[in-house]
Amino acid sequence: MTIRTPLASAHHRRIVALGGGHGLAAALTALRLLTDEVTAVVTVADDGGSSGRLREEFDVLPPGDLRMALSALCDDSDWGHTWRDVLQHRFAGSGELKGHALGNLMIVSIWELLGDTVAGLDLVGRLLGARGRVLPMAAEPLQIVAEIHGHDPDRPDETVEVRGQHRVASSPGVVSSIGIVPTCPEPCAEALTAVGQADWVMLGPGSWFTSVMPHLLVPGLADALVATPARRLLNLNLEVGKGETRDFRAEDHLASFAANAPDLRLDVVLADPSVVSDPASLRAAAADLGAELVVAPVSARGEPGVHDPLRLAAALRDVID
Amino acid sequence: MTIRTPLASAHHRRIVALGGGHGLAAALTALRLLTDEVTAVVTVADDGGSSGRLREEFDVLPPGDLRMALSALCDDSDWGHTWRDVLQHRFAGSGELKGHALGNLMIVSIWELLGDTVAGLDLVGRLLGARGRVLPMAAEPLQIVAEIHGHDPDRPDETVEVRGQHRVASSPGVVSSIGIVPTCPEPCAEALTAVGQADWVMLGPGSWFTSVMPHLLVPGLADALVATPARRLLNLNLEVGKGETRDFRAEDHLASFAANAPDLRLDVVLADPSVVSDPASLRAAAADLGAELVVAPVSARGEPGVHDPLRLAAALRDVID
Repeated sequence: MTIRTPLASAHHRRIVALGGGHGLAAALTALRLLTDEVTAVVTVADDGGSSGRLREEFDVLPPGDLRMALSALCDDSDWGHTWRDVLQHRFAGSGELKGHALGNLMIVSIWELLGDTVAGLDLVGRLLGARGRVLPMAAEPLQIVAEIHGHDPDRPDETVEVRGQHRVASSPGVVSSIGIVPTCPEPCAEALTAVGQADWVMLGPGSWFTSVMPHLLVPGLADALVATPARRLLNLNLEVGKGETRDFRAEDHLASFAANAPDLRLDVVLADPSVVSDPASLRAAAADLGAELVVAPVSARGEPGVHDPLRLAAALRDVID
Repeated sequence: MTIRTPLASAHHRRIVALGGGHGLAAALTALRLLTDEVTAVVTVADDGGSSGRLREEFDVLPPGDLRMALSALCDDSDWGHTWRDVLQHRFAGSGELKGHALGNLMIVSIWELLGDTVAGLDLVGRLLGARGRVLPMAAEPLQIVAEIHGHDPDRPDETVEVRGQHRVASSPGVVSSIGIVPTCPEPCAEALTAVGQADWVMLGPGSWFTSVMPHLLVPGLADALVATPARRLLNLNLEVGKGETRDFRAEDHLASFAANAPDLRLDVVLADPSVVSDPASLRAAAADLGAELVVAPVSARGEPGVHDPLRLAAALRDVID
């Protein structure tokens, strides 16, 4: 897929995308088709897999979601694609390196060398010819803390506190509330500036409680989101009733949003037709947040739960224009 | 140190430098000041440290000496220096990554991704803006096998076979002969071509038995060195009586050279004054190999055993001109 021409009058708009994991990567893959001024603001609470091991070994921000976001913004050239593939390469085998992504090891090395988180991410961005910039949502690693109902299958009526993104995301129970530790982390100054100067800020898609909501729990970042003159958009997830939010309808996501960020108003809620079971009810829930509901097909064919970058780009362009 | 202008009429000469480790890196640092057409041909028998762990985990060529050679050829710019430092970065701490150089992990990842040793090294060279090219001396990993007298301090009169570069290099005994396993490895085709097209081929400096002599034991490469119309130079080591060659005078190196490559003639033997105890004797030993002895100061001040890149560059330029 090679699409080099600007697809919209939006291509000088400054857009900040907040999230984590594959959901954020999908949003960035769409947004890089629309503008050269994307800033990704990425969750830093991951404690599983390669990122978790590096976080434990070196007491650094978990690099995995940052790496994925950088890779999604790579230049659409042989050079960009090759280095994206190198960064995304994961060691196989059965030895001490098994499961580590090379890009995670590179980012941690560069952080150790430069002693500057943002300068390090910018350097990897230059390697990839990235269109835009990738920043962490906080300057220090965070831990997700959740109240989960039915976490222990033997005690289905009990609500317990569960700590750690990986344990929360893989719990069989239902999340009733969420927090972060430390509760008031140092924000990333460049992320606050980007939010303040944006034309649009966009949240999601992504794992609701572990990739999307955590941004709203970082006080400095939440304040910047409230204060920015930018317009605000929420990309609703495609599988609203699965994973961390398996008992949630689309409306419940909006209620959860309001509970976690009571002062934050939205301008647009973007939903795929597949998650809209009761249009009037969802429109009313969006209106409660100040937002217009936009329903547009954004899902990938044959891949349940996955956003299609071109359809998402088309829908976002229509909203922005 | 920023020296960008060609320092000699030599700057279009095609020079192939054979060796390994810090010695080869010193030669390359000097040669890149003299020509844009350096090809490093690097030993692939290392089995210690980060390279040894990777070789064991992934059954690949040991990447460490290749990484060091690439780093030595990096572009003399902020970009080149930064990525050189990233590649050379070694993980500290006490975890599973301790001691690994990031560049080694990157090279192995790229090899897994591309499935092509030379294309992978060329890609890392482009990242560094390397002046010249780095190639392995064989297409498969090798094992050093040495007959060592006095390897076991309790049996000082016994000669035993010792396998593995790391064990050979760190043995307290005296190497009496050396070989490689497999005895007839697949050569690197691009290295043979480079030797055949060179104006000069240069061996050393470097650990005599584990970084310099192994090249002469790869049959295809030894044949190419004999057949090339290029002129041939041997950089003698500075600490001729230490490490693997602790009982060697400079003359003994030349005798060892003749024993390992009976058909290979030399044009120049370059020696620092500090290793020339008997000029007439060393001149005669060089003449036995067909070579002129050139004595020039090439050692670094205050760093025993280390070649100074600028002095070495000056001496090599004088020889080439």
